[in-house]
Amino acid sequence: MIDHASGALEIASAVKAGSVSAVEIARAALFRIGALDAHLGAFTAVTAERALDEAAAVDARVRSGGDPGPLAGVPFAVKNLFDVKGLPTLAGSKINAGHAPAGTDAELVRRLNDAGAVLVGALNMGEYAYDFTGENSHHGPSRNPHDPARMSGGSSGGSGTAVAAGFVPLALGSDTNGSIRVPSSFCGLFGLKPTFGRLSREGTFPFCFSLDHLGPLGRSAADLAAAYDAMREPGAGTPVSPVLGQGAEGLRIAVAGDYFARGGDPVAFEAVATVAEALGARDTVVVPEAARARAAAYVITAAEGGSLHLDRLRTRAADFDPATRDRLMAGAMVPVPWYLQAQRFRRWYHDRVMELFSRVDILLAPATPCTAPPIGQQTMVLDGVEMLVRPNIGIFTQPLSLIGLPVVAVPVRRPGGLPIGVQVVAAPGREDLALRVAADLEAKGVCQAPVARGETSWER
Amino acid sequence: MIDHASGALEIASAVKAGSVSAVEIARAALFRIGALDAHLGAFTAVTAERALDEAAAVDARVRSGGDPGPLAGVPFAVKNLFDVKGLPTLAGSKINAGHAPAGTDAELVRRLNDAGAVLVGALNMGEYAYDFTGENSHHGPSRNPHDPARMSGGSSGGSGTAVAAGFVPLALGSDTNGSIRVPSSFCGLFGLKPTFGRLSREGTFPFCFSLDHLGPLGRSAADLAAAYDAMREPGAGTPVSPVLGQGAEGLRIAVAGDYFARGGDPVAFEAVATVAEALGARDTVVVPEAARARAAAYVITAAEGGSLHLDRLRTRAADFDPATRDRLMAGAMVPVPWYLQAQRFRRWYHDRVMELFSRVDILLAPATPCTAPPIGQQTMVLDGVEMLVRPNIGIFTQPLSLIGLPVVAVPVRRPGGLPIGVQVVAAPGREDLALRVAADLEAKGVCQAPVARGETSWER
Repeated sequence: MIDHASGALEIASAVKAGSVSAVEIARAALFRIGALDAHLGAFTAVTAERALDEAAAVDARVRSGGDPGPLAGVPFAVKNLFDVKGLPTLAGSKINAGHAPAGTDAELVRRLNDAGAVLVGALNMGEYAYDFTGENSHHGPSRNPHDPARMSGGSSGGSGTAVAAGFVPLALGSDTNGSIRVPSSFCGLFGLKPTFGRLSREGTFPFCFSLDHLGPLGRSAADLAAAYDAMREPGAGTPVSPVLGQGAEGLRIAVAGDYFARGGDPVAFEAVATVAEALGARDTVVVPEAARARAAAYVITAAEGGSLHLDRLRTRAADFDPATRDRLMAGAMVPVPWYLQAQRFRRWYHDRVMELFSRVDILLAPATPCTAPPIGQQTMVLDGVEMLVRPNIGIFTQPLSLIGLPVVAVPVRRPGGLPIGVQVVAAPGREDLALRVAADLEAKGVCQAPVARGETSWER
Repeated sequence: MIDHASGALEIASAVKAGSVSAVEIARAALFRIGALDAHLGAFTAVTAERALDEAAAVDARVRSGGDPGPLAGVPFAVKNLFDVKGLPTLAGSKINAGHAPAGTDAELVRRLNDAGAVLVGALNMGEYAYDFTGENSHHGPSRNPHDPARMSGGSSGGSGTAVAAGFVPLALGSDTNGSIRVPSSFCGLFGLKPTFGRLSREGTFPFCFSLDHLGPLGRSAADLAAAYDAMREPGAGTPVSPVLGQGAEGLRIAVAGDYFARGGDPVAFEAVATVAEALGARDTVVVPEAARARAAAYVITAAEGGSLHLDRLRTRAADFDPATRDRLMAGAMVPVPWYLQAQRFRRWYHDRVMELFSRVDILLAPATPCTAPPIGQQTMVLDGVEMLVRPNIGIFTQPLSLIGLPVVAVPVRRPGGLPIGVQVVAAPGREDLALRVAADLEAKGVCQAPVARGETSWER
């Protein structure tokens, strides 16, 4: 039975088998979005007509006996920094709302369409992706479906909301410092931040050229793998989907200690311990200078972001969210020696972490230091220290994306509790290993991405 | 007959043939340096004992019938930013004079030694290589042997002085914005700035990591080619020396117009015209946005240099030459957006110039906008505009090194006049073409690198 809680691959199977039509699936998704999203704030645009056209084309292919693709009829939506033909690419900004509509789709949208997936809309996000909360002063917050008074997590907040609410089984986000992994953790989803450079950024609104990654959020490791395989350059390597069934057996898995074992709520470390136990991972390794890595990520982010937005800061300062603007302005004045020192450190740190990956295959670390805070909350207490919420949600994600490591955020099953995620981290190019571990945790019942309450059935 | 005006390959031939010993050659070079350099200021250290030892080893190899190498017994000297075992690596600085002596030689010194060349000393240079004049407030100016009241050109000033004075047939310099090509032009020498990244920088004191090049200055194209072949990584490509005899026939050679045809003394453009006519080059091509390329080189130089020297600027400001210090301090405060914009432009410009090299093989441009100014001169008039000397000597060299193009500076024969050079510019990796053109110009008698007057014979 296919409903709003079905995964992408389940839907594709049913559509290919003819037991449900892509148009029915699309209509159900559009209906659910229409019924519930005014309250949750996941979408900034719903592409209903396009979705129905795409779905009809999939159905026609099924009827004619052609191959409708591995994601046939799967509804998906994209963070509104992806170009969608006919829509202005907002990137969460009021300024961009005045841009001309995109003339073509982003490369990854095209690839998912080619795989048979059906685009249903563009998703809310933190302004210009400089955000960990999922709040947006222009479009309102994207709310956490598990508790709408709480943050979805940013900056791919709408992506987290849309998948956790059962609007779509698959959404695309971007991750510069944690923006896929944070909403995955807060909304209880699987999220893949691939190796830096692995997926095309063509047709997306950038933030930091040396840190931006794109990737999928979904409700199972297999769905992430299928989406990842569909989005990669043809011939870019072995598909990862076929190896998921191999499980985690034989992999050298260690828990990241030191920096990654302090500075968070106990619940964050309990989640890591739960995952580690399920995997039989008893070793702890130290990622050297992780605190400096986070600092370097901050400097590079501010400087590259400030550089990108310099003209807008000069001419449209009043049209920014003040929380974004002030950090970008500071970033635009960062002197070059800080930036070059951060980049030099980055190389050093990369080489040290690569040494570490000669001894282990997978590192486990918390995804966020806490569960989703209430929307609007300004400070929090971590490890007995009161600190600002916004800049500290990414303390465990930033040191890993700085060097472009592939990470799968996995949602740890906590019946009755708010979701929280764990990062499953691999060496560059080893998405396959991280996804195998994620699938293994799912099979063992340790990780699970349930659709939030409040559902409207899609049943035929 | 071998004397102080003999070229490197002539010396090597005579040494290999046993008609002169390497020790005799070394003694003669040391004698000439001792007799004349107090006045010219080329050397900051003479390595007499080492030179005689190395020369004796070459002679022993000749006597035993072994191969003494392609540069057997050739005296050479290096800009004092190259590590020389036992000497502090000054890089033209008073601060560095307090450094511990280098424990090993720079990689390129080792390679020339391996080829049989004999190191006779370390050469004066502009402080930290941030210089086009050859002046140095700590070690005095390196003077132009053709007129000791005039600049040698910087920052490899001592390299220019030493070769033009007949102290050595070969010297190494570095070129970040023109520091090999400028002294080659002022001192009437051949100078090779190879493609960025082609020669190892190991064991040298840096200035700008994305712009620094190392290379030889000499008195013939063949000597440059021999030195270049000896210094390249083994197996890094076809040697260039064997192709020099092919001449310039069949190459598509064009004069760089627009930016490169204005802003200099008429003598600079006459030199280009002389070379072009000798080569039958009648086409003019425009290098797009060359003025911006120079601006980008300035920003990148200041920012990378300021970053490199930040700690010294903080702790040893009074020990810098004020002319260097103030520019480095300004560079250390350059905001990141300027630097990133310069780097972005650089990529664009690189791609445009590569398009140009699909239509031509060689570009001709002036090396300097004027002949060597008097030492200490602060301003000059170019094209009717009075401007500062220091920052404007490199106007024609900076736009080419910004994208790492290989350039041979060739000295145009001007009996009775001060020397001036022309840049022979090729596409990346095509040192062979630029050197073929240089050799052709030499064969035609259009270019010549005479030793300055004031000689002491080396004759046996």
